[in-house]
Amino acid sequence: MTGKFITIEGLEGAGKTTQAQVLVEWLASRGHKIVRTREPGGTPVAEKIRNLILDHHEEEIDPVAELLLVFASRKQHVERLIRPGIAAGDWVVSDRFTDATYAYQGGGRCLDEALIREMELTVLDDFQPDLTIWFDCDAEVGLARASARGELDRIEQESMAFFNRCRSAYERRAQAHPQRFIRINANNPVEKVTEELLTALEAYFA
Amino acid sequence: MTGKFITIEGLEGAGKTTQAQVLVEWLASRGHKIVRTREPGGTPVAEKIRNLILDHHEEEIDPVAELLLVFASRKQHVERLIRPGIAAGDWVVSDRFTDATYAYQGGGRCLDEALIREMELTVLDDFQPDLTIWFDCDAEVGLARASARGELDRIEQESMAFFNRCRSAYERRAQAHPQRFIRINANNPVEKVTEELLTALEAYFA
Ligand SMILES: Nc1ncnc2c1ncn2[C@@H]1O[C@H](COP(=O)(O)OP(=O)(O)O)[C@@H](O)[C@H]1O
Ligand SMILES: Nc1ncnc2c1ncn2[C@@H]1O[C@H](COP(=O)(O)OP(=O)(O)O)[C@@H](O)[C@H]1O
Ligand SMILES: [Mg+2]
Ligand SMILES: [Mg+2]
Repeated sequence: MTGKFITIEGLEGAGKTTQAQVLVEWLASRGHKIVRTREPGGTPVAEKIRNLILDHHEEEIDPVAELLLVFASRKQHVERLIRPGIAAGDWVVSDRFTDATYAYQGGGRCLDEALIREMELTVLDDFQPDLTIWFDCDAEVGLARASARGELDRIEQESMAFFNRCRSAYERRAQAHPQRFIRINANNPVEKVTEELLTALEAYFA
Repeated sequence: MTGKFITIEGLEGAGKTTQAQVLVEWLASRGHKIVRTREPGGTPVAEKIRNLILDHHEEEIDPVAELLLVFASRKQHVERLIRPGIAAGDWVVSDRFTDATYAYQGGGRCLDEALIREMELTVLDDFQPDLTIWFDCDAEVGLARASARGELDRIEQESMAFFNRCRSAYERRAQAHPQRFIRINANNPVEKVTEELLTALEAYFA
């Protein structure tokens, strides 16, 4: 039996890492073998590309060059880890995937959505998650949490306007793909978010 | 007055670096301001991507991921160095450009030429060199010279069949774009290659 591919989305500080633990334990308790991964990254080469994307550099990265780096790491991740995992029956849980590209490079950097769509089709043969859990919090809330966590990377140091555009782009994704998206209100305290997540999972996999 | 964009192509060991010096001096003697650059690379971020492409890694790089890395570095190079240079009136001379992608990722790695063409159109808006000088040598000849030079990088350590496919792909490029390509027989001794290059330049810019 083939496995499933579940993605976790949301702004910095939304609580993805915190709630991924809850999700993974819940899925494991139902007997699934879990592979937990993240983007950008997920394989040795993809993690090196991640560093290039998130590091600070002595020159600005062209937005389309950034998009190509994101899809280079994703291609490596999909072909070498995600697809083989699913084929082996694993449930692969990724902290971020292509929806994040629509949010950050599309919304945040204002790249044309059609360009991202074209890359998704050409490079990934339109490979999509089975389920996406979107931890939706306000840009202010997420940024305040992420800043408290420590130093900000190249993308985390963007403006509030940037993250507001990312959030709106996530919202458009969720509206366009309602059968795949579960939205969780991530402005709430951790326990409340966990509770809402578990209720949603029980309902979805009922 | 805008400048020009000239590219140098050929297999490893063809003599590109050796003859680039001759080309650059000849152009400079005609009063042009020269910017000499290379691919992959050419800007700080593009050079970091170059290292990723050429380094040895603990896993194989997916051919499409490699293609995306190549175009990521090229996009950065074109937007931040090549186009601004030409706009400022410089003559930009690059050791390799998109023809090398048709040769190595297309010919060598057997990726579909149509995919490379699509990337070239979408990512670069079909930006092309004004002139391409192809130092054409046999795979055996080039590889022997490159091996004598020292340790081989991730691509230089490919098989003879790989480089034969690269050479054939260069030949198809030259045939498809005869007005832009100058072919130089690079199997000859250095002095002979230099002589043929200078003769071709005198004729082209007559
Ligand atoms: N619902 C929440 N309310 C308040 N703080 C939270 C909440 N969820 C997570 N945090 C805290 O905010 C920070 C970012 O959470 P994290 O799970 O790392 O988010 P992400 O992975 O989405 O960036 C961490 O310090 C975490 O403990
Ligand atoms: N025509 C030639 N005949 C013999 N050796 C050559 C010739 N051209 C270059 N070489 C030598 O071959 C090696 C590779 O040349 P180089 O110019 O670095 O090639 P490329 O830049 O195309 O890889 C160098 O050691 C160079 O001195
Ligand atoms: Mg996290
Ligand atoms: Mg060279």
